[in-house]
Order: sequence, then C-alpha cells, then structure tokens
Amino acid sequence: MPILPPGVAARDFTAATRLFEEAVGRDWVFTSDEDVNLYRDAFSTSWGEPDELIPSAAVAPANVEQVQAVVRAANRYKVPLFPIATGKNFAYGGPAPNLRGSVVVDLKRMNRVLELDADRYTCLVEPGVSYFDLYRAIQERGLKLWIDNPSPGWGSPMGNALDHGIGHTMGRHRDHFGSHCGIEAVLANGEVMRTGMGAMPNAGSWQDYPYGYGPDVAGLFGQANFGIVTKMGFWLYPQPESYRTGLVTVPRRRDLDGLIKAINYLEQSYLIGEPILGSPLRRALAKSPSLRALVTKTGGITDAALDKAASDENLHVWSCDLQFYGPERTNKANWEFSKAKIASFVPDAKFYEGESFAMPPKGDQLNNTISPFPSGVQRRQTFGIPDLAVWSNISRTDADPEPWRDGHIGFSPVIPRTADAVFKAQEVFVDALAEIGVQSRVNHLQTPLCWFQRAFVFITTFPTSKTNPEINRKTREAVKKLIPIGAQHGWGEYRCPPAFQDAVVEAYSFGGHSLRRFNEAMKDAADPNGILAPGRGGIWPKRYRGRRA
Amino acid sequence: MPILPPGVAARDFTAATRLFEEAVGRDWVFTSDEDVNLYRDAFSTSWGEPDELIPSAAVAPANVEQVQAVVRAANRYKVPLFPIATGKNFAYGGPAPNLRGSVVVDLKRMNRVLELDADRYTCLVEPGVSYFDLYRAIQERGLKLWIDNPSPGWGSPMGNALDHGIGHTMGRHRDHFGSHCGIEAVLANGEVMRTGMGAMPNAGSWQDYPYGYGPDVAGLFGQANFGIVTKMGFWLYPQPESYRTGLVTVPRRRDLDGLIKAINYLEQSYLIGEPILGSPLRRALAKSPSLRALVTKTGGITDAALDKAASDENLHVWSCDLQFYGPERTNKANWEFSKAKIASFVPDAKFYEGESFAMPPKGDQLNNTISPFPSGVQRRQTFGIPDLAVWSNISRTDADPEPWRDGHIGFSPVIPRTADAVFKAQEVFVDALAEIGVQSRVNHLQTPLCWFQRAFVFITTFPTSKTNPEINRKTREAVKKLIPIGAQHGWGEYRCPPAFQDAVVEAYSFGGHSLRRFNEAMKDAADPNGILAPGRGGIWPKRYRGRRA
Repeated sequence: MPILPPGVAARDFTAATRLFEEAVGRDWVFTSDEDVNLYRDAFSTSWGEPDELIPSAAVAPANVEQVQAVVRAANRYKVPLFPIATGKNFAYGGPAPNLRGSVVVDLKRMNRVLELDADRYTCLVEPGVSYFDLYRAIQERGLKLWIDNPSPGWGSPMGNALDHGIGHTMGRHRDHFGSHCGIEAVLANGEVMRTGMGAMPNAGSWQDYPYGYGPDVAGLFGQANFGIVTKMGFWLYPQPESYRTGLVTVPRRRDLDGLIKAINYLEQSYLIGEPILGSPLRRALAKSPSLRALVTKTGGITDAALDKAASDENLHVWSCDLQFYGPERTNKANWEFSKAKIASFVPDAKFYEGESFAMPPKGDQLNNTISPFPSGVQRRQTFGIPDLAVWSNISRTDADPEPWRDGHIGFSPVIPRTADAVFKAQEVFVDALAEIGVQSRVNHLQTPLCWFQRAFVFITTFPTSKTNPEINRKTREAVKKLIPIGAQHGWGEYRCPPAFQDAVVEAYSFGGHSLRRFNEAMKDAADPNGILAPGRGGIWPKRYRGRRA
Repeated sequence: MPILPPGVAARDFTAATRLFEEAVGRDWVFTSDEDVNLYRDAFSTSWGEPDELIPSAAVAPANVEQVQAVVRAANRYKVPLFPIATGKNFAYGGPAPNLRGSVVVDLKRMNRVLELDADRYTCLVEPGVSYFDLYRAIQERGLKLWIDNPSPGWGSPMGNALDHGIGHTMGRHRDHFGSHCGIEAVLANGEVMRTGMGAMPNAGSWQDYPYGYGPDVAGLFGQANFGIVTKMGFWLYPQPESYRTGLVTVPRRRDLDGLIKAINYLEQSYLIGEPILGSPLRRALAKSPSLRALVTKTGGITDAALDKAASDENLHVWSCDLQFYGPERTNKANWEFSKAKIASFVPDAKFYEGESFAMPPKGDQLNNTISPFPSGVQRRQTFGIPDLAVWSNISRTDADPEPWRDGHIGFSPVIPRTADAVFKAQEVFVDALAEIGVQSRVNHLQTPLCWFQRAFVFITTFPTSKTNPEINRKTREAVKKLIPIGAQHGWGEYRCPPAFQDAVVEAYSFGGHSLRRFNEAMKDAADPNGILAPGRGGIWPKRYRGRRA
C-alpha cells in the first residue's frame, strides 16, 4: 500500500487512481514502490526519514486533454497533484513534491517542439522538451537560432524557466522566465488558459508580444501552483557571427569596486555576455596555510591584509573573464572599449587577450577554458550548447570525501551587484558557518555569480547523503540558520528545495507578510480544493494551510 | 450635486467623502463641477453624452498612509475608486475612469524620485513623477543615466508602464512594463504589499532582481485593478558614448520581407536601436492621383502594380532609419555590418550615411531629423530626452479640418513582425475602412511601428470632438467594427481607451474566455467589494459584472 496524501481516504485515492487510469491508460499510472521511487529527490535532505517528500503515485498524461482529465479527477477526490516537466531540478528538489503523498503529474510524454521560427527567433515547446531536444531540433533543421541553456542540459526550458532558472550568454537571455513569451496552462478547474496574445484565437504573435491586453498573469505560474503549464513560448536569438574572450585582473581587494562598476556598465550596455568573476589568488591557497587562515578568518579582514598576501604571492586579487558575441569587428571594438572602461576605474588593471573565432565553435574551441586563471566555467554553456559537464563534475565516486559523495543542495541568496555587498556577504557567511560549525567553501576570496543581469547570487552548497542522516541533519540545520541570517542583511533566496521554501518565504515578510497573504488569497480563488502543488513557492491552499513549516 | 457611483446611496457617498477629507485634508478632496471637469477625458468619444466616463469626485493623497486611509473609507461605503498617476494617457482614456461616477485617486502629489543609482542604473519613483521630473533629477545630479521615454514626456514612468506603454531607444528598454523592477501597491484591503525583493525588508536589491521568491505578481498591476501602485522601480541604462544613424531603402514592394528579416536579426542581436520603417514613395502621393488611387485601392494590390508606380516615380518603395548607440567604433562596426546584413537579403538596397556624434547631443543634433526621407520621428525621444513635440504636432487649431481639431484615439492592433502580416493588415484595414465609410490614413504604403521588440503595432487613429457628436459616433462605430475584424486575423489591441476595453477583451476569447474568467476570479478574491477601478482592463468585479459592455 503506497503512502496516501494527507486527508485523503484510501477509498478516494483508489477511486481517483481509477479515473487517472481511464484518462491516460493503465500503463501511465504508477503506484508501485519501484516506480514511485523514481520520483524521489535523489538530493533530499531527509532521505529515508519519515518526512521525506515522497509522492504516493505518478501519472503521465500524453496531451492537454489528458491533463485536464487528471485535474478533474483530482478535484473530484481532492487528491493533491505535483506537476513536473522533466523533473531534473537537482539541488532544488528534483521531481519530489512539497507535500508528501502528492501525485506527481509527469509531463515527459508531452515532448514536442511545436514551433521554431528562424525569422522571428522564437520557439513554442511542451513540458517534456529538454534543452538537448530543443538544440537538436534546431540543428536538424539547420537553423541559425541561438539558445541560452543552463548546465546540465537535460532539464527543460519550461521547468527551468518556471523555477526562475538561468543560463550563461547575454544578460536578458540568461533570465529564462523573463525570456518566455506565452504560457498555456490547465487551471485547477480543468479549463485551458493562454496568456498574452495566446488569448486571441489564431494570434500569429503569441511568441512575439508577451502582454496581450489586460494584466499579465504569466508570473503566477513561476515558483507557484496556479496551474499546470502545458505549453510555453520562448524568445530565442540570432546565432552570433563571432565570439571573443578577454581577461582582466585587478591587484587590490578594494579594486573589486571599480571592476564591478565597469562590468555593470558594459553588461547594461549589451557590450559583453556573462562576466565571470574569480580570484587568481585562489591558486595560492593550497600551498599557503597563512593565506588560507586569512581568507577563512572570522570577524572580517582588512584590505591591507589581503593586499599584502596578494603582493607576497605576486598575484592579483580579482579577475573577470569577459565574453563578446557579435560581428567580429564589433567584438574587437567592444573588447578595446572594455579595456579602456575598466582602466578608467582601475588604472593598473592587467588585460589578457583571449581567443576570437567564428560561431558556432568547432573542435578545441568547444572545450578550451577561457583564461590563464581557470574559473571552472564550462565553455559549452557560454555558447548555448547543452552538455552534462557540470553534472559530471559533481557526480562523486566512493573515493570522494563522504559528505560530498551523494549530492548537494544550493543555498542561493541574491545580493546587490556591488563590491560592498560582496565583502559583507563573505564576512557574514564566513562568520555564520564558523559559528554553525559546518565546513563550507565560503571564504574571503569567494566571488559571486553574475547569472542575473542586475544582481549577484552568492551561492553556497551543502552536502546531502543517502546513507548518513547526520550529514543531512547538519545541512538542514545550516540552511535553516542561514536563511534568517541572510534576511537580516536583506538577502533572500531566489530558489530553493521544497523542504526550505516555507522558511525562505517566511523571510520575505514585508508588510506583515502581505505578499504571502495576497498569494494565498489568489490561490484559494484559483484552486478552492487545493489540489495543485500545495506548498509550492510557500503557498499553501486553505485546506493544507496548517502544514506550513 | 455631483453624479454618484452606481449602487452607492447619496448618504454613503457623502459619508465616504467626509472620510476622504479626514484622510487627506479638505483641500485635497474635489467635488465641484469645476474641479471634477479636470478629470474628464479631453479625447473622450462620448464627450458630453450621458455615458461619458465622468468621475463623481477626486481625492489627492500625499503619501502611502493616506492612500490606505482612502481605500479603507472606500471599502466601508463601497465607493469605486480610479487611481491615476499623472493622468496624461491621452488617446487611451486620459484620467477618466472605466465606471462613470468613480472617485479618481489622483496621485500627483506623490512625486518624489526616491532612488537613483548611477552604478546599478536603477530608479525608484512615486506615481506623480513625470518623465520630465525623472530626467531633470538625473541632470541635476550630473549622472550619466539614460532613460527611455515616450513622447510627450509629461506622463509618468509608472502610469506609462502600467498601461504597457513604450519608448524609443533599445528594444528591451522600450518595453516600459518589462523594464520595471519592483512594485509597491496598496491592496483593496488597505494593506501595503511589495513585489520581488521588496518583500524582503531592507533588501538592497529591490530594483535589481525582479522575482524575489515565489510567483511574480507584478503583472497583475498592469492594465488592471489589483491595487493602487504607490512606488515602482525601473531599470535605467548607462548613457551611451555615441550615437549614429544610417538609412536604407529597398526598391520593390516584396523587398519588405528581406528588410524586416534583416532588422529582426539586427535588433535581436542588440546591434541597433528602434528601427523606423517608412516609404519614400509617400512623398509622391500629393502630386500623383493615380498613385493615391493605387495605394488606397480596396481588394488588395499586386507587387507589380506598386513596383511600377515606384519605378515611374524613380523612388524606392520602403525605407528604414537605423540608429546605433554605443562606443563610437562599435557603432561604426555595427553600421557596416548592418549594410552587409541587409544587402544579403536585398542586394540592390541603397544605403545613406547619417550622422555620428557623441552623446549627449548638443545644439542642432537635438533636432535634426534622421534621413532624406523624413519619417516624422521626433529626434529627442530617440535620445531619451523628454519633450512635447508629438503633442504640439497634434495640438490642432481652428484652421485644421474639423474632424482632427479636438483630439483622437488610437486603434492599436499587434501584428506579427513579418512582411506578410503588414501586407495583410494594409489590405484588411483599407477594405474595412472603405466599407465602414470612415476617412483614415491607412493605405498600402502604411508601415507598422517597431515599438515592441518582437512585434509590430499597426496603428490607426480616429478623431474625437468636443462639439460634434457625429464625429464621435463615427469613431465609436469604426473602432467597434474594427476590433472583431482584426480579431478574425489574430490581431488584438495592446492598449485602448476605457470605452473600448470590454470590446477588446471580448476578442481575447481563447478557451471560452478562460483568461477573463481567471482574472475576474482573482479580482473577486483580491477586492471583494469591487472598489478598485471596476472595469479596468475589461475586469469587472462581481458587484459590477453586469456592466460589461
């Protein structure tokens, strides 16, 4: 007997399962432990414990009509559903639901690339289309369309966008939700709705103009539970003619201020792609205990102390990889301009010429790292070519130190795109993690990620284990302590696994939680039986509101 | 005695007015005809008629707390409110409400530029801040921040964005709602809510990262009635170093296809600013009755006929003004690249060098038109400098032909960014307007506007009159007939005056109007008494739902 959704009698669950089978066929309703196990989160922080977020069953519809039938059946018996696209949201929850016992609606069978427009640079995809699928469809048709993908590429444009995921090319492209144009969703009442121009039957511009007329409700479908998204349009881009790289380093700790101001200028002027900050000084860490002690010191560090350490090692403190996409001569002009702009802030910045070649890249161009100070950046993702490189980097073996063997979760606070915020975040998290007593990679050389166009994310990861509950306990404790510590400084998470979504939303408390109350009032109106992904995005329907962590 | 909101007894209205006076002071509650007249829509299509959308009163709060008090008073007596920022939405309704008798909440006193960040290129403004105000605040502080404004510039960034308004620089900037980052709104229950990172108290990144955590509800505040927006953040941009123009013309009607494909490539690659399509052949219209007859011919025209006419006049059929913003050498490289790209589609395209100068422009640079074929583009708006040029162009005198003396409204359907859509729209609207029997400027040389980054808008204007009801009757009839005609082809309006919003939304009918039902379910949950802008965006609260046109 599988676990049951809370508040659903076994008889009702069985009856709902029958209706699911009628809707999608018996082969596509999964209730055996063996099948349901596939929908557990392999990176769960409660693996095997009584509160692990395990579904009761899964159902895999083949089309929109079947999704509607599943939703109607769930409404009839008040069975909570949890829709997933490809379910590859590792480190942020995988395919597992917010509410233990929910029925996963696995949309992988709906995997058609419905539209690809090479003149208007758009696509329309179903949930089960992965970045690999989309890339392959473009290549097969010989189109010069450019996509922006995260790494690994087995996730779906839809699932990634709906969890506010990111990529690695130009600023506006990297915001995957912000790059969508047009949503079709099955609502909790079983109706099909389209946003934007999609609400106009036969509109030829569904993927071109996002708003249609009236309010734009698309935002309600990201990190939330207002519908099961069945189609989603995206803006793609023209394949650039050419690609160029360059590297800059700046000598002193405080030079990060000018460096960030310069890259903000360059990026907001569309002159560069994703900037990648790093620290050349990191490579001295292994052989210098005194440097290691300095950069992990609690209570903050001084500019002078780090500057002296850098000078002793004859290394600059910070680096930034720059990337240029466009016509060859434009890239060259933009690189020259970038050097001048950065030097106007940091006169003794050093510049290193990178490569320049035609797009798409070939052979070694695909794999070269950018700079003499390897930043760990996977080259393919900067070209918009899906791969699994990040995944293979974090797929551990038995030889790895135990805590990192099985998996990890991301703790991902958004901080302002300023040097002051970076220095403060380094100090706060170094201190907090020392106090909590958890090993981490946060130190005074950690640089933030520039995924977002206008803000930094200052990511820390914590290990998860399938065999050692103590590792998971420590991770849970660390994250639950860090969330309010970040919030004291105004840093909130942009994304997190279901187990922590309530805690994250708890910190978004302006106006005595007026946003959460607003969301829940909307949720109750849209989904009175609370059947769609209860708890997702910290939004609990009336029926389950008492379950808030 | 002023008119009353429907369903509100005189006694309740008086009691509410008292509470408004307590909230904002007697001087800021307006009930006299003289005062209330200022909130009529000067471009109303029902001027002086019994169904003109006239408010009953106006109230002007000075701060958020006063807005909250006004909302609470309105809730107590169920008085419908209609918030305006600067109320300058001429041609799309001005300051007048959707529901006759609503009380205008005039937010002009809340006019502070609260934040201007020259390192992160953002601002936070109150409703009453105009584009002039914002521009002036930037200049006074000597900041190199670039804004994107519509013309005229007396409207507000907030009001313009909330009605999905547009500007005239780079593609993403021109989408003013899409360029916002962070909303504060007073909800119908009187609570204050902030979206995105603003829901995190003391977040330093409210204007930097739009989503925060959970669903993005910001879209509900555009073209709708889910709250009174009291603060709004925007992404601004670095002032570009330099500006350059160039002009291209293509000889044949069908060359529009290649021209549009080329500008789509250039714009989606961030290489150009707003492209401005035109037709050099237009200047032959005045002296060629046969050309005029051809371009206004019903039943469509052939390529051959228009090509022969162009050839007879020794003129090319289409033109496009190109604009470049960036470092000087980048602009030069992008112009050279643009010529090559366009020529790859239309080998006998002709190119004309424009100007190139440093930003900000000075002297004559501010006023020169771009090209030898004047497109009517106001130069200042392409620099992000607010002016009133468009306004002075359409401020008529008694010497003007009567129909255009008083005002006009815009009929603004979104069409795909393709030549086929342009030819079809020309044909459909030429035929429709001939059939309706209304004079218009639509003809087979009309080019669409490239305001949106990915779609065209194919605008027609119709006159309004304060003295001749027949002109208004004809305009109403034309618009009401054109809306469903456009919808047959999948073309929906992006914006329209209150008098036509129900008709526009009626055409966004996918799924048996599932989007409208969803919006109204949300509305009823957020605003059970239906006090906020009933009817705005075609969304009628339960209480007034029977009033849908």
